[in-house]
Amino acid sequence: MSNLASHKRKFSVFLIVSEILFLIAFAALVRYDDDAAPKIVQHEADNSAKVVVKQEPDTQKQEADISADINPAGDEPAADDPQEESQIEDSAGRKLNGLYPMFQDVHVMIFVGFGFLMMFLKNYGLSAVSYNFLLSAFVIQYAIIVGGIAKMVVAKIDGGSLSAIYIGVDTLFESDFTCAAVLISFGAVLGKLSAFELLLMSTFEVLIFKINETIGVHYIKAADMGGSMFVHVFGAYFGLAVSRVMNEMNHRNRPTEGSDYKSDMFSMIGTIFLWIYWPSFNSALATDEERVRAVVNTYIALCASCVITFAISAMTEKDGKVTIAHVQNATLAGGVAVGTSCNMMIHPAGAMFIGLAAGALSTVGFAYIQGFLDRVIGLHDTCGVNNLHGMPGLLAGLSGIVAAAFASDESYGDATRVFGDFKDGVDQALRQTGALLITFALAITGGLLSGLIIRVLPTSSLTKQQYYNDSDFFTDVHFDDIGESQSINKQDESNI
Amino acid sequence: MSNLASHKRKFSVFLIVSEILFLIAFAALVRYDDDAAPKIVQHEADNSAKVVVKQEPDTQKQEADISADINPAGDEPAADDPQEESQIEDSAGRKLNGLYPMFQDVHVMIFVGFGFLMMFLKNYGLSAVSYNFLLSAFVIQYAIIVGGIAKMVVAKIDGGSLSAIYIGVDTLFESDFTCAAVLISFGAVLGKLSAFELLLMSTFEVLIFKINETIGVHYIKAADMGGSMFVHVFGAYFGLAVSRVMNEMNHRNRPTEGSDYKSDMFSMIGTIFLWIYWPSFNSALATDEERVRAVVNTYIALCASCVITFAISAMTEKDGKVTIAHVQNATLAGGVAVGTSCNMMIHPAGAMFIGLAAGALSTVGFAYIQGFLDRVIGLHDTCGVNNLHGMPGLLAGLSGIVAAAFASDESYGDATRVFGDFKDGVDQALRQTGALLITFALAITGGLLSGLIIRVLPTSSLTKQQYYNDSDFFTDVHFDDIGESQSINKQDESNI
Amino acid sequence: MSNLASHKRKFSVFLIVSEILFLIAFAALVRYDDDAAPKIVQHEADNSAKVVVKQEPDTQKQEADISADINPAGDEPAADDPQEESQIEDSAGRKLNGLYPMFQDVHVMIFVGFGFLMMFLKNYGLSAVSYNFLLSAFVIQYAIIVGGIAKMVVAKIDGGSLSAIYIGVDTLFESDFTCAAVLISFGAVLGKLSAFELLLMSTFEVLIFKINETIGVHYIKAADMGGSMFVHVFGAYFGLAVSRVMNEMNHRNRPTEGSDYKSDMFSMIGTIFLWIYWPSFNSALATDEERVRAVVNTYIALCASCVITFAISAMTEKDGKVTIAHVQNATLAGGVAVGTSCNMMIHPAGAMFIGLAAGALSTVGFAYIQGFLDRVIGLHDTCGVNNLHGMPGLLAGLSGIVAAAFASDESYGDATRVFGDFKDGVDQALRQTGALLITFALAITGGLLSGLIIRVLPTSSLTKQQYYNDSDFFTDVHFDDIGESQSINKQDESNI
Repeated sequence: MSNLASHKRKFSVFLIVSEILFLIAFAALVRYDDDAAPKIVQHEADNSAKVVVKQEPDTQKQEADISADINPAGDEPAADDPQEESQIEDSAGRKLNGLYPMFQDVHVMIFVGFGFLMMFLKNYGLSAVSYNFLLSAFVIQYAIIVGGIAKMVVAKIDGGSLSAIYIGVDTLFESDFTCAAVLISFGAVLGKLSAFELLLMSTFEVLIFKINETIGVHYIKAADMGGSMFVHVFGAYFGLAVSRVMNEMNHRNRPTEGSDYKSDMFSMIGTIFLWIYWPSFNSALATDEERVRAVVNTYIALCASCVITFAISAMTEKDGKVTIAHVQNATLAGGVAVGTSCNMMIHPAGAMFIGLAAGALSTVGFAYIQGFLDRVIGLHDTCGVNNLHGMPGLLAGLSGIVAAAFASDESYGDATRVFGDFKDGVDQALRQTGALLITFALAITGGLLSGLIIRVLPTSSLTKQQYYNDSDFFTDVHFDDIGESQSINKQDESNI
Repeated sequence: MSNLASHKRKFSVFLIVSEILFLIAFAALVRYDDDAAPKIVQHEADNSAKVVVKQEPDTQKQEADISADINPAGDEPAADDPQEESQIEDSAGRKLNGLYPMFQDVHVMIFVGFGFLMMFLKNYGLSAVSYNFLLSAFVIQYAIIVGGIAKMVVAKIDGGSLSAIYIGVDTLFESDFTCAAVLISFGAVLGKLSAFELLLMSTFEVLIFKINETIGVHYIKAADMGGSMFVHVFGAYFGLAVSRVMNEMNHRNRPTEGSDYKSDMFSMIGTIFLWIYWPSFNSALATDEERVRAVVNTYIALCASCVITFAISAMTEKDGKVTIAHVQNATLAGGVAVGTSCNMMIHPAGAMFIGLAAGALSTVGFAYIQGFLDRVIGLHDTCGVNNLHGMPGLLAGLSGIVAAAFASDESYGDATRVFGDFKDGVDQALRQTGALLITFALAITGGLLSGLIIRVLPTSSLTKQQYYNDSDFFTDVHFDDIGESQSINKQDESNI
Repeated sequence: MSNLASHKRKFSVFLIVSEILFLIAFAALVRYDDDAAPKIVQHEADNSAKVVVKQEPDTQKQEADISADINPAGDEPAADDPQEESQIEDSAGRKLNGLYPMFQDVHVMIFVGFGFLMMFLKNYGLSAVSYNFLLSAFVIQYAIIVGGIAKMVVAKIDGGSLSAIYIGVDTLFESDFTCAAVLISFGAVLGKLSAFELLLMSTFEVLIFKINETIGVHYIKAADMGGSMFVHVFGAYFGLAVSRVMNEMNHRNRPTEGSDYKSDMFSMIGTIFLWIYWPSFNSALATDEERVRAVVNTYIALCASCVITFAISAMTEKDGKVTIAHVQNATLAGGVAVGTSCNMMIHPAGAMFIGLAAGALSTVGFAYIQGFLDRVIGLHDTCGVNNLHGMPGLLAGLSGIVAAAFASDESYGDATRVFGDFKDGVDQALRQTGALLITFALAITGGLLSGLIIRVLPTSSLTKQQYYNDSDFFTDVHFDDIGESQSINKQDESNI
């Protein structure tokens, strides 16, 4: 068995062992939540009014409280209200009707958006979309367990108890948000880590992600509706820290680290779907008028960052031409930068201003800052996640601090709808600041440690020829010296 | 007129005659159902309560009953409840709000998912997506008529009467499910039948599909929420039977029966959209908490089958590399295999187990079983539908039998919500078994007969050069000897 | 600074100045509407009933009335009903649940549908999707301002007053509809205008679009649910008029004005998504049973036009082959042609007939009429928008006139639900006729004038080599003599 094959064997064994452990954990701990569990229906004489008795009503009370913490304003109207027991029968259906389309939008962002956006490398498209697929499917299962255990631990610490991991509609969002953080980190190391190393990175990252999120949301009570701090800042700086630690001179200036005409087109599929559905990502867990506001603000910020990206990109080139990598990425920065404050009273013009600032910052990042960081501190960032997620995420955190500082019950009707435990603007601004700093620190520290562990483990890192190259992972993919795919003798694998 | 042109003329004539017949049938038989027909609104003094008098209230009562049979648990809350006449005005709106987004998800699966998944052949991508488009648009219209007549016949047999074919929101799903079966069959014969032959195949298949579905759902009363038996098993074995009958030695080992680097990327568009929206396919017709359960179970099974596919695929190659065809297909097997039982109380761990089993089975199918069947019984399966739809569909049927055997009113609250006419677990398990066996038998028999009829009809089958080749059907598409497209002198056809 | 770079500088300056003006206008005029503004919630003792006091209840009353005019039947159930003040809290949530998924469908049509459909040119794919992206993001912001000011002016003329531009859920649709018109015009001049010229065209077009829409909807009170007159006819003939004025002999018969095998595949992504989501476009602003009818009618018309396109396309070629450009475009004509009448009582067979007529007309347009118009009146139409949007849009207008002529309160329950101020069929048919004629006249006149202005402005029009060529606008894109992309030495721009 060659060294490569041995490495690949570890990959298979890791996945199989993981799935067995997931299966055991699911069997032992995971249960359907109230939205998915059967109801005992007592058919009465008057069939226009059914009385529904919920099963296990007490075990989930604590769960509901914690869930409300994770998403301060996300309590679905009346679903758990004891006063409305008799109407609960179709509350699961109503909840699903409202949330499911937005979940599917987010799901498209995770699997199509991120997956195709990263297909821009000319010889790494199949790996990009496939690793994106594999990592997400892995992280979803793993995050259900880690996130559920985190809730059980928090319940214990808070003096309550939670006997199981309950899954339902809310789980769908929580898992996809965790995926987003991992995929952002993936972008920083795209083409430089093997599949096995990426799985190890994800394993560490999800743990630290959940710790950070629990601290920020449950204990610090910071608001971050679109996850710009907990997802984007965390994912970007975790990934960049891993990239720095894994840094090798021989993955630089490889002829395969480039896009070609067709790979840029595939990448645009990812860009456009991310851009379209971003309002769903930012608003999914908001309710009522707050949700409409989150949609509208995100939508405006995205339009502004798209337009300004073209303007600035043309200014960064002597001949006034536009760089397609800017169009593929910086157009999205408005969605990141407005994520924390999208449900706050930032005014439509405020959303537009944030979008303009983010698009300009991101384009400048791609044109100048990325190369500078690579030369000066040896920070190689394949997809430019610092430009799209890192700096715009920090901008989002700052916007959230400012918006929180000006918040009051007068301007919000009831500010606890947006901020959870709202006391006053200054207090909330300090909470926002604390969450941002802790997120940044945990991401960098966690990423450095994870990178170091991966380096010392016997994972057979990629060699020079294997960087940014699909032929390392896939059968029947071959490239010639100039990076053109060679497929003349390739037969459909499924028809031997 | 050459032989080819004569064949093409039949294609046009067939389509035009079909559309004229569809138009006549629609004019004579099809009416808007209650959800789409106008309401007579009586504006009263108190404008907060409108009294609505439905038009044709009696003609559709029978329809509603039959529709409830086709989807045992799918009765929309209170929409047809005579007690709630006064609230009916916006029930159509509410029903559409709940169902329409899921319908559009399914619609994307049919036209984008299946269409692009089948673009993997390097010289047949335009045909794959175009035939997929044409067959589906044809089948939707045809299935409305065939399905509607089936309901009228059943009403007559059951002693009632139904005077028209009513179309509305439910029609959208029924037609797309029928399309799915036809498109699965299309996958088995991809590249080997001409457009005209495919239309003939579809014409026969829809008839037998509707007969089988009516037997299984209305008479046997088997539960199959995601259609894994009635759609996947039926479609796969019908198509495989046609493929066996149409079997020719000269469509084997053609240099064009293979994928290339770019065609594999287009195919991933199909895979990813199918994977994302599969929970909508399986849960669309469920209601309330049963719907949430169907979503969650399908979602878990899909994640598990994705991860295990990568693991097993790497194990089937000596050098530990992964085969992209496995990623494109076997990752989806969990969605098929959990389809019958997704709304049953299979526990989240049960869903995960089914997904793991299906992903492994499907990957092994692609790696070993498909080639074996081709060599031993001459069964050529272009897309490997036996691996993705056939065997995982049988697994779904078995899972449904087992889950039904353990069902009880205690565990389901009210088991009739999931199983329709539920008596006890053993009875229901027998019904599930009967439906699976009849589906399998009708699919094979129907496919063999349809294939024989197509063989004897003067349809000018494809010649050796025309297999897996877009240049047979499209103007201005040319390939050189090694399968590279030749487009140098091609002008935009729309600008002569 | 070269001439080209100088031109590009104008492009950047135009965008930056526009965004500054947008920002000022948003700060001065734009406010969240009731759906997005905070509510003052008075928590009462009985927490099962919350009393909500709306902020600024009077300022928006006028707005609501005008909005109802723009969409005669689009009054959301009870959202503004003073009788139901106490239930308003989650009305924003419910409204969003119903409308948001359809908005996202339309959003996909605008950015993915139009964007990828226009990628068919082999050397212009990146420009097509990027200009589509830029123009839409620009038009959304601009249309919010122009549309809002139009409402303020109309309120003044009508004797009322409206103090701000209110944005919310409805804004999302209005802006996307305006984008659609601009993108249709873009299709007529695709590859022939520079980015700067396209922005100028859009600037003029949105003004005239909003004037025409206000006349047609608010004053003439014509019904046009799917916007086939106000969007498709207007966009097509405006763009064609610009194309005629900008007409140059040297953009004809360029070797780059053609598709290739892969670019045709990308284009199919656009076609399929447009086709799938078209029912959402046509029905988004309808309510209740009228919305279901709009969905079903559009769905049937699309199926019919898809099938007939294949049949007619094969008949237009001597060898019976199908032209992929017909499949990419004419299959969609049913959605355009049924747009005006989709919510009317046209019967399912009527929808099918309209779809068949539109598909046939559009295919014949591509095969014969487009070349004829080019030769005879020098009308060059890159995407064939006359065939897909122009003639089918006129057919839609005619269908609307006929359907309106037969309308009555008996057949519609209450015809004002569909037609707004319905008097009788003849009156409404005259209104429909007037709106169609005015739309056609304003589109042609506006397009000619806009084209003339662009010609006389110093916009440095494209030279011979720059037509249909991405290398004019993007860095690092190069094509050789036969149009193959040259990317050997291209490095990822983001990693210098």
